[in-house]
Amino acid sequence: MSTLASLRAEVCEANRGLARYGLACLTWGNVSGISPDREVVAIKPSGVPYDRLTPADIVLVAADGRVVEGSLRPSSDTPTHWILYQAFPSIGGITHTHSPYATMFAQARREIHCLGTTHADHFHGSIPVTRQLTPAEVEAGYEEATGHAIVERLRGLNPAALPAVLVAGHAPFCWGCSASESLKNAIALETVALMAYGTAMLAEPAKPTTLEPYILTKHHERKHGPSAYYGQS
Amino acid sequence: MSTLASLRAEVCEANRGLARYGLACLTWGNVSGISPDREVVAIKPSGVPYDRLTPADIVLVAADGRVVEGSLRPSSDTPTHWILYQAFPSIGGITHTHSPYATMFAQARREIHCLGTTHADHFHGSIPVTRQLTPAEVEAGYEEATGHAIVERLRGLNPAALPAVLVAGHAPFCWGCSASESLKNAIALETVALMAYGTAMLAEPAKPTTLEPYILTKHHERKHGPSAYYGQS
Amino acid sequence: MSTLASLRAEVCEANRGLARYGLACLTWGNVSGISPDREVVAIKPSGVPYDRLTPADIVLVAADGRVVEGSLRPSSDTPTHWILYQAFPSIGGITHTHSPYATMFAQARREIHCLGTTHADHFHGSIPVTRQLTPAEVEAGYEEATGHAIVERLRGLNPAALPAVLVAGHAPFCWGCSASESLKNAIALETVALMAYGTAMLAEPAKPTTLEPYILTKHHERKHGPSAYYGQS
Amino acid sequence: MSTLASLRAEVCEANRGLARYGLACLTWGNVSGISPDREVVAIKPSGVPYDRLTPADIVLVAADGRVVEGSLRPSSDTPTHWILYQAFPSIGGITHTHSPYATMFAQARREIHCLGTTHADHFHGSIPVTRQLTPAEVEAGYEEATGHAIVERLRGLNPAALPAVLVAGHAPFCWGCSASESLKNAIALETVALMAYGTAMLAEPAKPTTLEPYILTKHHERKHGPSAYYGQS
Repeated sequence: MSTLASLRAEVCEANRGLARYGLACLTWGNVSGISPDREVVAIKPSGVPYDRLTPADIVLVAADGRVVEGSLRPSSDTPTHWILYQAFPSIGGITHTHSPYATMFAQARREIHCLGTTHADHFHGSIPVTRQLTPAEVEAGYEEATGHAIVERLRGLNPAALPAVLVAGHAPFCWGCSASESLKNAIALETVALMAYGTAMLAEPAKPTTLEPYILTKHHERKHGPSAYYGQS
Repeated sequence: MSTLASLRAEVCEANRGLARYGLACLTWGNVSGISPDREVVAIKPSGVPYDRLTPADIVLVAADGRVVEGSLRPSSDTPTHWILYQAFPSIGGITHTHSPYATMFAQARREIHCLGTTHADHFHGSIPVTRQLTPAEVEAGYEEATGHAIVERLRGLNPAALPAVLVAGHAPFCWGCSASESLKNAIALETVALMAYGTAMLAEPAKPTTLEPYILTKHHERKHGPSAYYGQS
Repeated sequence: MSTLASLRAEVCEANRGLARYGLACLTWGNVSGISPDREVVAIKPSGVPYDRLTPADIVLVAADGRVVEGSLRPSSDTPTHWILYQAFPSIGGITHTHSPYATMFAQARREIHCLGTTHADHFHGSIPVTRQLTPAEVEAGYEEATGHAIVERLRGLNPAALPAVLVAGHAPFCWGCSASESLKNAIALETVALMAYGTAMLAEPAKPTTLEPYILTKHHERKHGPSAYYGQS
Repeated sequence: MSTLASLRAEVCEANRGLARYGLACLTWGNVSGISPDREVVAIKPSGVPYDRLTPADIVLVAADGRVVEGSLRPSSDTPTHWILYQAFPSIGGITHTHSPYATMFAQARREIHCLGTTHADHFHGSIPVTRQLTPAEVEAGYEEATGHAIVERLRGLNPAALPAVLVAGHAPFCWGCSASESLKNAIALETVALMAYGTAMLAEPAKPTTLEPYILTKHHERKHGPSAYYGQS
């Protein structure tokens, strides 16, 4: 299978995973992957239900928005994806969902603090929230402005160690080294958001205790650090 | 397939969707569709479980309540459906559910404010709540009165842009250009209600921030406006 | 099929429904049905998982606790069931679950008030909570005492119109004209409890509005009254 | 089948149960069982998805951490499991999950009090929370330190009657006489945590009433005591 064919297959499978893992209903989410030469992004076609998606439906789009291959219109969020790929050279896949608990935090415009090791295993610190867009930005190019707001918010942070963001009043974007890894981060984010939601309710009226920084680092390192010993080598 | 046969098939499939998407348990919900000439409404038979429903079970009912075709008794909510079809000429299908989160808001008699783009993609503004019926209205014709209260509450609003309402102390009614589109709006409403519920809990004791009006309009327009670019053309 | 064989089949199917509808995990619930002559109760064997249950496993038990037919030990809650059958001659089936939301109210020792028509369709008024048992009652015969506390709490109420109770610090018991109808009431109770839970959270710090009594009666009557017009005749 | 082969099969099946019962997503949990001679622990391989797990993948590990059989790397939590097996000679299996509601309590560093008979049937008293580890402990051997903190917290308690603990800022560990029994306790704990969560919300701002001690003991004894009459003999 050619590189692009296998990219399409992986992106198709990850998009189908959005429905299977309960991260998106109807057509509210999209996964993309970028080719190794970073010339084309493979992304979900707009408005097509997940259970009907085949690899042939996946659209290949160039950085200038031109459709390189595919007969369907790409996701309307494609410009946001491209801006992230250009700003974060280490990432290979992006998952955008409206998963309910992560979206609650995005709507409440509230960061998800690291309250436990489930969070620490995937995200090295709080999941940040973007600033709100201005009317002029929305007018001039809404999806591009969303991408730029994410990049702006991630400034000074390491996108490889913190592969998720909450777009204020909207929903999460997650990423990873590939389309399927970005999907895993989206699954992790939704569960972490559910746990953070419940922990906040149990702790009220106080704020829940943030995980000790040395446990946060320990858990993240045992999975992702140079001497990681989680998983198979 | 004749027009009425395909209407029945679509209405049957949408009613089965109520159970499949977790919008109704037992027999607590019904979907209908109206014929293109707006002479007959195809609706679920009363009290029949969703998994046993076949197109032949769907009942055809005229505006005066007469059963035009079908051997079963139509949903007891049929008069409510007919009143909506008469008041809103642009709609082609109606879905009534007791989906849990939307029903919580109906029971709390609290509007669902637009708190994010998931909401904005489907509903252009707050989901309104009807006034309570009087004892006299309940006595004279409960289901008709429910329909009239919905129409009264929607006065001055655009039912095509706001395809849902919460009946106070009862549950939601959603609509759309067809039976299957009304089901999609009911799926969207339930998820939006879940998200609004959680956002309210996270924001307490304050009220959650309502989505900026220019984002609300942008999201609704990119999906439903004259220059919509979401989905396939 | 003989009367007792068909009773066993129905009771088996209703017990399997406990798992299918998410009302009981592991072996935390049991359904029974009484024979038309009210001589034997067919009930789940104790501690047997739902997915392995066959009609042959269902145990037939007489009023004095004697096993009339079946090689397995009956549910340890059998004495509670028998006391309800003796006190409420109109009922033919009983479902006991530990379904999560109904159990939350039982644990909070808080009635489930009628907040909407979903409740009104099944239960004519608040779901009551039993008083706590004394140490002496627990010592003398725990399961019998549980039955007597339910009967005591239902005094002055109509068990046919109010087919559920919450045992304080324990969980719900539901009943109906047959085993399968009692299961339906348990499904309804769990959903009603979830909705009441969320409505209470949305209404805080105030109490949620109770459904107007004339709507409560209207909904209950259109389904269960002498001129009921819900369902098929 | 040899003893070790059947241990592996049981441990494999219990690990697959983590996903089937919604106790772990991705690869966030592990079940182990110890051989009758307490020489080897059979445990999940690290980072392998549940649906691909076969008995041949299960790793056999000695007390000193040496892999006795199996080509995969064992779970990184293996040292924690071994410390529990050494401290609690009566247990035969351990289940570690990140199930959402139990984890919320672990993150809130709040015990789960016994609020009802669902809890009493499985756990004789509050589910305790460990103290936080120090930076030095995390540095010197994180997984061993986690095991020692659990053993320290259980001091003076009976692990057979209280087969679960919450690791502060982390998640639960459950145990039982076998791998499959430890899984059942993990299922029970998650449901009990959900119920305790909701009961706390319904009772606020007060604390929910703890179950009367004589009911707690009665329920636990009728299932686990010397004269137990729950289940089949």
